[in-house]
Amino acid sequence: MATVEGCLVASTHRGCKALSSSFEGGVNSVILSDGMTRGPVVQFANTKRCNELKQFIDNPENFKELCRVFNSDSRFARLLEVKVGIAGRKAFLRFKCRTGDAMGMNMISKATQKALKFLKNEHFQDMDILSLSGNYCTDKKPSAMNWIEGRGKSVVVDATIPKDVVKNVLKTTVDEIVSLNISKNLIGSAMAGSVGGFNAHAANIVTAIFLATGQDAAQNVESSNCMTIMEKTDNGDLYVSVTMPSIEVGTVGGGTHLDAQKTCLKIIGVAGANQENPGQNAQTLAKCVASTVMAGELSLMAALAADHLVSAHIAHNRKK
Amino acid sequence: MATVEGCLVASTHRGCKALSSSFEGGVNSVILSDGMTRGPVVQFANTKRCNELKQFIDNPENFKELCRVFNSDSRFARLLEVKVGIAGRKAFLRFKCRTGDAMGMNMISKATQKALKFLKNEHFQDMDILSLSGNYCTDKKPSAMNWIEGRGKSVVVDATIPKDVVKNVLKTTVDEIVSLNISKNLIGSAMAGSVGGFNAHAANIVTAIFLATGQDAAQNVESSNCMTIMEKTDNGDLYVSVTMPSIEVGTVGGGTHLDAQKTCLKIIGVAGANQENPGQNAQTLAKCVASTVMAGELSLMAALAADHLVSAHIAHNRKK
Amino acid sequence: MATVEGCLVASTHRGCKALSSSFEGGVNSVILSDGMTRGPVVQFANTKRCNELKQFIDNPENFKELCRVFNSDSRFARLLEVKVGIAGRKAFLRFKCRTGDAMGMNMISKATQKALKFLKNEHFQDMDILSLSGNYCTDKKPSAMNWIEGRGKSVVVDATIPKDVVKNVLKTTVDEIVSLNISKNLIGSAMAGSVGGFNAHAANIVTAIFLATGQDAAQNVESSNCMTIMEKTDNGDLYVSVTMPSIEVGTVGGGTHLDAQKTCLKIIGVAGANQENPGQNAQTLAKCVASTVMAGELSLMAALAADHLVSAHIAHNRKK
Amino acid sequence: MATVEGCLVASTHRGCKALSSSFEGGVNSVILSDGMTRGPVVQFANTKRCNELKQFIDNPENFKELCRVFNSDSRFARLLEVKVGIAGRKAFLRFKCRTGDAMGMNMISKATQKALKFLKNEHFQDMDILSLSGNYCTDKKPSAMNWIEGRGKSVVVDATIPKDVVKNVLKTTVDEIVSLNISKNLIGSAMAGSVGGFNAHAANIVTAIFLATGQDAAQNVESSNCMTIMEKTDNGDLYVSVTMPSIEVGTVGGGTHLDAQKTCLKIIGVAGANQENPGQNAQTLAKCVASTVMAGELSLMAALAADHLVSAHIAHNRKK
Repeated sequence: MATVEGCLVASTHRGCKALSSSFEGGVNSVILSDGMTRGPVVQFANTKRCNELKQFIDNPENFKELCRVFNSDSRFARLLEVKVGIAGRKAFLRFKCRTGDAMGMNMISKATQKALKFLKNEHFQDMDILSLSGNYCTDKKPSAMNWIEGRGKSVVVDATIPKDVVKNVLKTTVDEIVSLNISKNLIGSAMAGSVGGFNAHAANIVTAIFLATGQDAAQNVESSNCMTIMEKTDNGDLYVSVTMPSIEVGTVGGGTHLDAQKTCLKIIGVAGANQENPGQNAQTLAKCVASTVMAGELSLMAALAADHLVSAHIAHNRKK
Repeated sequence: MATVEGCLVASTHRGCKALSSSFEGGVNSVILSDGMTRGPVVQFANTKRCNELKQFIDNPENFKELCRVFNSDSRFARLLEVKVGIAGRKAFLRFKCRTGDAMGMNMISKATQKALKFLKNEHFQDMDILSLSGNYCTDKKPSAMNWIEGRGKSVVVDATIPKDVVKNVLKTTVDEIVSLNISKNLIGSAMAGSVGGFNAHAANIVTAIFLATGQDAAQNVESSNCMTIMEKTDNGDLYVSVTMPSIEVGTVGGGTHLDAQKTCLKIIGVAGANQENPGQNAQTLAKCVASTVMAGELSLMAALAADHLVSAHIAHNRKK
Repeated sequence: MATVEGCLVASTHRGCKALSSSFEGGVNSVILSDGMTRGPVVQFANTKRCNELKQFIDNPENFKELCRVFNSDSRFARLLEVKVGIAGRKAFLRFKCRTGDAMGMNMISKATQKALKFLKNEHFQDMDILSLSGNYCTDKKPSAMNWIEGRGKSVVVDATIPKDVVKNVLKTTVDEIVSLNISKNLIGSAMAGSVGGFNAHAANIVTAIFLATGQDAAQNVESSNCMTIMEKTDNGDLYVSVTMPSIEVGTVGGGTHLDAQKTCLKIIGVAGANQENPGQNAQTLAKCVASTVMAGELSLMAALAADHLVSAHIAHNRKK
Repeated sequence: MATVEGCLVASTHRGCKALSSSFEGGVNSVILSDGMTRGPVVQFANTKRCNELKQFIDNPENFKELCRVFNSDSRFARLLEVKVGIAGRKAFLRFKCRTGDAMGMNMISKATQKALKFLKNEHFQDMDILSLSGNYCTDKKPSAMNWIEGRGKSVVVDATIPKDVVKNVLKTTVDEIVSLNISKNLIGSAMAGSVGGFNAHAANIVTAIFLATGQDAAQNVESSNCMTIMEKTDNGDLYVSVTMPSIEVGTVGGGTHLDAQKTCLKIIGVAGANQENPGQNAQTLAKCVASTVMAGELSLMAALAADHLVSAHIAHNRKK
């Protein structure tokens, strides 16, 4: 992690310690989906034509043809789906594709341009391509789209921490930390009108790792979308999970070739492209981000809960 | 700007060139408000007590007393308001205060803690202070709260660019760029369910300047909230504005003391605290951020609009 | 309640029964704020002039003068505040005022028009009044503005229900219903990208009462903004609250004079204007809405939790 | 339309008059998608199992089997897709299905229950079905989900109105109404933090038609999601469109059998089930709603724009 905030490292370290004592012997992680997106906007004379474009793309045969064109440009670009949104006579096409171990914005931009030209030249000559990006992607802006549909890697990690580890390592209780998570990360963020910000400080960890590993730090905006959930299990232990639908990372391209950054990637064991299984290095890095975020969440939430525990005890005694 | 993306610098430069030829001879800027926020969550036995706390704080006499306590901790902290939100028996108190030339998170955290203790010890002994942050701040998470209420510096910058500068420097037309801004930055972002993301790439510029000047890059989440507006004036020129309600920057504290970062601040002329008018350096830096974002918006939008112009012409000729 | 869904009445009735057995002997309710809003949009040549308007209105002396003009039109209209939002060279002015026992849209529209003319004629002759409503109100549309700032009556109601009442009347357990509320009303709504929709079916009750008492049913959109919270108390009982920041109701005007509707208002004891304390009838009606919503939430959530309880038991037995 | 607001009818009538003079000779309309949704929430021991459920459902063979079970319950229910969202160890399954001419909430609820039992009994015995609705649907609450994914009928209508009709019938100019639409319906709503509320007063028309035709008026919350777009065409005429992704209507069930309501449906020619093409009556009704909303938007926006036109002229003359 690259940060000038020293206690961020120490704090995350404590969370990691708690997680290493989990019943799972660490952290479980799943990749729900993996695909970079680009959402151009095109325009027709009327909405009827927009709908014909949508029907065309939704047709499996046509989609197969579109994939062929889209994928022809790169060894790694693999079109997964095109989500078509229509506003009046404008159509927004959200292309989603696999991009190997690259974060993939350049790759998808080129392939999308090719696909648009194909659509225009071969099938919809009256289509006016307004812009390669119509903010339907959505890149580096807050949006419900990325929260609901995902962008880059959609990752969930979880673990179950024994109640005595909560007590001895995190210095709080399962009840305290679970209750605070509801008050702050669920209710508090809901009161503030947040979409996707149901966490304590995911952005701190995301930014630190992005800088350390050569990612595009501006993409922190959506990559730090995160919901932290804490629950008391039937046995009284702490179930914790972190859901991050839009982590945008790569292990090739961008700043990943710089010396210091490359060294960091090597330490994690994900430098460069994965030869056997393209995309696996980037996925591992995304899991790494989410796991470290979970450590950071545990530690900060524990600190806040412990403060409350202490002050609540004092208050209780004072009353007597 | 600190970035590995070289064309970001070149692109912003072009925008700056266009802005320097504006009718205003550059950029106009206003600071709508200036105040860092912290939003703790407290709890009572019932909502009636929450409301009594709200009534207490809303009372001018009590607020004056609260200010005295809050401000006593620092030469710079000056409490501006406390916005009280209530959810059941939980109250969220959004303290907003001036913080001189510091970004101010540490300053406001300490002062808020003091204010909470005062409220509890002197007036509401049954108040349970759950957490110093209840995500009502909102720090490093997307939220409508920051978009609507502002956080840090709320800045608007604007300029009017002659139509021939649009043509010669930006290589597009007023009609093209205005129309694209509506399709992409207003309609596109609205279609994607964005709150506060009505721009092309504000986060790129915010992140680059934050890294270069020692800011907390994780705060780009809300600092890059931005609405870009472009309009054709009655004379056919281009009115452009950028509205950024939550730029969080400081010229002291954080990473501002590091050599490279301090040098950058010196170049802008805002290193350290402003002795005569505390807070003015940080405000100038915020205006700088917004102005550079506007340059970046102009340049990228012009490039996208020019692409469209070219392809539209080709299409037009082809039909013949 | 006016509805064709018979079981809605029966269900709400069960919730009421549980609430009547609460420790409080019913429901506690508070009015956090009371004010109808109208948000016109005006335009200047540049953002600097917008800011001058904002500074003018924020000045206490000027605001007093503005109040005088605004209030002169009606016996009941009492201006509370004007929140100024600026986007480029457009300013959005959110007037908020007391409206006695009327819902108040007509009253505030007239008074706002008068205030705008005053501002233009006396102080800002270069101000271009684009529209009496700039959607900054926000009337009959979803918006974070109403969720965060409130509109009409902001009401919170709560109660604590003994655990045996939860068991005998609601046919579930405190743990089950509390847990379901978190999964569905907090996490589920957050996953769906909701702002203000953290409840099970508030809109059902709001609409039914609105139709029965002559309100504007189209305002259900924001009037049903609601967060339902359920918590287990230290004694193992059920704390429940319903937070509704934007209930728009009146006991005069609109459809309140129609025979059937007036009869309904009389039954509640709030028909017509309250002579001694203008506005109290409308506030009582708003509390009534929130309390009935809480009954409806309790009953539906209990039914869903009970289903789960049954199926979980079956599953548990089946495994053996 | 059922309303106590008389001028709503008159106003809509004027909009209809303008639309009947459009170049298209009325209104064009498209149905982008048609499917009611229900989003239950289930829980596993960990997120890994959630992901296995997601992978299972995403598998085409399994989905086919799931469809067979789901559809077996009704002549009309036809499962279209299941969108799986995961938050920690909770999975939200958004079933979307055709429901013939019924609005379809009851139909889909039953079928979803059946599908869940099948999944649990046959494939995922460790799945805990927490609730038939997990607010991922989303029914009667604001949500980005419905705005982005659609619910019920997703409809777009548009028309191009000659500039002289704008002048003679709507009493404004193309430039004035286009400009106001941007300031109010796009920028104003964006400033207010709206998701899906980019219109002037869609809810008025939706509610009036819902009451008149026996729909569930509480569903106006999401049914009135709407973006109104106005643009000046190359010929100087007015292009207008209304995009409504989540209109929930039926021509059988609910209150459609009541005398007055049935009469209204008959007048439109959509009473009861369409025998030849099940679902077509409900789709026609949805198009009717959107078209009337467009008429209402045109008329109100024209009135506001005309006010501005008048006052701007006066101001202009006064200056002289």
